Amino acid sequence: MSEAETSPRATRRKAGERRERISRVTDYHNLTNPFPKMKVFSDDRIDAIHEASLNVLENLGIKVLLPQARELFKNGGAKVDESTEMVFIGRDMVEAAVGSAPGSIPIMAGVRDKDILLAPGKLVFQCGAGAPNVTDLERGRRPGTLADFRELVRLNQHFDVLHMVPPIVEPQDVPINLRHYEVMRAQLNLSNKVPFVFSRGTPQVLESFEMIRDFRGLSDEEFHATSQCYTIINTNSPRQLDIPMAQGLIDFAKAGQVSIVTPFTLMGAMAPITIAGAITLSHAEALAAITLTQLVNPGAPVCYGTFTSNVDMKSGAPTFGTPEHFRASLAAGQLADKIGLPWRSASGSSANINDAQASNETQFGVWGCLLAGATVIIHAAGWLEGGLTVSYEKLVTDCEVLQMVAELCTKAQAGDDEIALDALAEVAPGGHFFGANHTMQRYQTEFYEPFIHDCSNFGSWSEAGAKDADHRATDVWKKILQEGAQYDAPGDRVENLEHYIDKRSGEGGAPPIS
Amino acid sequence: MSEAETSPRATRRKAGERRERISRVTDYHNLTNPFPKMKVFSDDRIDAIHEASLNVLENLGIKVLLPQARELFKNGGAKVDESTEMVFIGRDMVEAAVGSAPGSIPIMAGVRDKDILLAPGKLVFQCGAGAPNVTDLERGRRPGTLADFRELVRLNQHFDVLHMVPPIVEPQDVPINLRHYEVMRAQLNLSNKVPFVFSRGTPQVLESFEMIRDFRGLSDEEFHATSQCYTIINTNSPRQLDIPMAQGLIDFAKAGQVSIVTPFTLMGAMAPITIAGAITLSHAEALAAITLTQLVNPGAPVCYGTFTSNVDMKSGAPTFGTPEHFRASLAAGQLADKIGLPWRSASGSSANINDAQASNETQFGVWGCLLAGATVIIHAAGWLEGGLTVSYEKLVTDCEVLQMVAELCTKAQAGDDEIALDALAEVAPGGHFFGANHTMQRYQTEFYEPFIHDCSNFGSWSEAGAKDADHRATDVWKKILQEGAQYDAPGDRVENLEHYIDKRSGEGGAPPIS
Repeated sequence: MSEAETSPRATRRKAGERRERISRVTDYHNLTNPFPKMKVFSDDRIDAIHEASLNVLENLGIKVLLPQARELFKNGGAKVDESTEMVFIGRDMVEAAVGSAPGSIPIMAGVRDKDILLAPGKLVFQCGAGAPNVTDLERGRRPGTLADFRELVRLNQHFDVLHMVPPIVEPQDVPINLRHYEVMRAQLNLSNKVPFVFSRGTPQVLESFEMIRDFRGLSDEEFHATSQCYTIINTNSPRQLDIPMAQGLIDFAKAGQVSIVTPFTLMGAMAPITIAGAITLSHAEALAAITLTQLVNPGAPVCYGTFTSNVDMKSGAPTFGTPEHFRASLAAGQLADKIGLPWRSASGSSANINDAQASNETQFGVWGCLLAGATVIIHAAGWLEGGLTVSYEKLVTDCEVLQMVAELCTKAQAGDDEIALDALAEVAPGGHFFGANHTMQRYQTEFYEPFIHDCSNFGSWSEAGAKDADHRATDVWKKILQEGAQYDAPGDRVENLEHYIDKRSGEGGAPPIS
Repeated sequence: MSEAETSPRATRRKAGERRERISRVTDYHNLTNPFPKMKVFSDDRIDAIHEASLNVLENLGIKVLLPQARELFKNGGAKVDESTEMVFIGRDMVEAAVGSAPGSIPIMAGVRDKDILLAPGKLVFQCGAGAPNVTDLERGRRPGTLADFRELVRLNQHFDVLHMVPPIVEPQDVPINLRHYEVMRAQLNLSNKVPFVFSRGTPQVLESFEMIRDFRGLSDEEFHATSQCYTIINTNSPRQLDIPMAQGLIDFAKAGQVSIVTPFTLMGAMAPITIAGAITLSHAEALAAITLTQLVNPGAPVCYGTFTSNVDMKSGAPTFGTPEHFRASLAAGQLADKIGLPWRSASGSSANINDAQASNETQFGVWGCLLAGATVIIHAAGWLEGGLTVSYEKLVTDCEVLQMVAELCTKAQAGDDEIALDALAEVAPGGHFFGANHTMQRYQTEFYEPFIHDCSNFGSWSEAGAKDADHRATDVWKKILQEGAQYDAPGDRVENLEHYIDKRSGEGGAPPIS
């Protein structure tokens, strides 16, 4: 990391932010990946995978369920068989799309210092997302509700090392025609980080765009000229793009908003059992989706992505943070490099509880993404049960790891002051440096200060209640939530948003149709 | 890892080995590090640190408590002040020693396929070592005994990914004058991996050499001509080499046996608070020890090492698996590269229990060592409380991570068979690959099969008792120990060793004196 960017270390108390820092004052927001890139396959085999993906798109084709999308592909030069809904995309179309897709995507947050830049070399963390359930040690495992979602948005806001708001948990107690209002209300009122919009049909997407536009006081032109939010597009692997996903790609591209394309290809299930085969499929599907966005609006912001892991062949259950998952991330990183786009990868865990397995799988998965040079690493905190549950405690314990990684993104110093020959001369053989001048000048800020990891000795730790990290994490999230709002949106904006939501809700909301 | 060595995957049931494999049949023994090396400091600052270390040795000096060692240094050209026991070592002496120390060290185990090679680029894992206490969920935390040591040697033997026998726990119930007999009896009778010898004075060291020599049926010449065991040398930082450690360096160098030199430099305690300062000190001390071995016997096998982490400045307690520890490993790796010697680094954890913290710290520390290109990574499994305790369960859960790392050391395939265009054509859009021919041919061996990580769903897991990884690890180590000996040494050798030990014990054993 010798040449990595130095992050400013000043703590800045921002207007509207009330939270107290509990770690040292490194800026965890604007990270550049300091890790060397690792290759799993030789460059010529990566070329072969890319070629195979183009071959898949051109000759095997992809099933596209949305008529409008098939028409866009057809008008762009693809061969379309309406009877089978199959689309055969030529390599020239794919290459043009990769050429027009931006290599760097700025996304605006609620305030400038929460903006993010998706560009190769940058490093953006997201907590676990898309879970139907939540769990914590106080209230147990349960289906996710709006109350849970709102709490998790606040926890997500608290940790600077989490850079965007993902759809952390599904608020299942809110009717689907009203859910996007509540998801947006929580994101805009409780957080100023980059918000997420679910691609659940044009009406909901356009209303979500309106809410963000108006909340941020933007004109329609201003909104369309800048990216203000993002969606995640999962293909229906293998080789299928369903109606809401295709519609999302179209709607987001039209509006200049960001699609993060992520085929979810489990080796041995919806993808070939081999890493190379699964990645060939994932790459083909991602390229198809990217192509669609560029047919709609050349230059539309779209982020390449993959989420390729394996299944347990005994049970068929998905597993994460495995050697195969690690290697799939590396392969995807090599392909992302080849096409020159920012890209999203993912960690995860299949553990059922926040234990050694959960920690080890998630961290192992994160290292795969880091060494793959991923721009965005999702499910980097809090994900259990292969994504069926987000754990409050695991979100907290994983953030300790992400903060330690973020510390490695700062520049390390080895000037003469740090080499410290004076201090070495000052302390006699067998002595200690606790009281050395060199130590005294630095001891308050030299080291990362953990907030979950406890290095007290066994006696002190036992006397203090012998709490494991999981239970200490309960204390942390409860304290964060008890302290009050991490972010308070300006009152007039909140009021306008309430008014909008009340009005639309009264009109019946928006159904999830395309 | 595109060009990493392929490890053979055949399971080989070896004579005298009874254990059952519980993971897929990758050979975890002969590993080559597949990870790209990471730099924390620029090359010119590494040069500056090296220069500063030479400066420390030449001008500040190092206190050497053993008269024989001071004499060796003096005869080698060092300036020695007998009144202060300070030794001032010129850079020419250091450079000559680095030049004559072997860049590659083969160490013989009890059988050829457990031999190891310490050479830059190789990867050797050791479990946690040097702990006064042990803990497990059945019997609780307790001072280590011989029974514990023997069990842990057996667990260490079970896991192929643990490559040497370290002094895992101190058998405190054995009198110190007899302890080396019991330590050697356990290592030779219960394991055929490379054994460890404590440097606790010449009598014990020489007796340990004799036991290994005779057990392996070697002549004295054969023993001296090959490395058959190793010791670990910790300096007394700052700038001090105590009597047993200096004696160990001399005795091992004379006998052609391996010293692994590891200054234990905690930033802010016995070393400067800065990474660069602590590493300058560690490097200087390691070079002094290496120089001593080469003065005794040019070409004597000696392994460069570091163990530099930080203290918690609130409590003064040592911490491990921190960002500072990670970076210190990287810096040491750059210095090891510079001098071209194999080198040892370390992971660790300051957690008091095998929880999320314990897992996250140890794995974080391991990644620091891996990206630093460490040859030997010690404390990579089982270490709690900053080394005050070895946990049976943590040893098991950490081995899962080490096995996953070892899987990444094998060569990944991306041939046309793996890209699998046929399989991609065979499965219709939206279908699945479970029954595909390509899957059926591979499903039994394609993926790493975890032995602790459980990917069953929440319902099945709950019905099965809702055991966390820690408790599942209890089941694993109990099963391993219940299955009987992992290794049975040939009876005649065991008998001869018993005879030797009985005789020497009857004569009063050997005191820990130099």
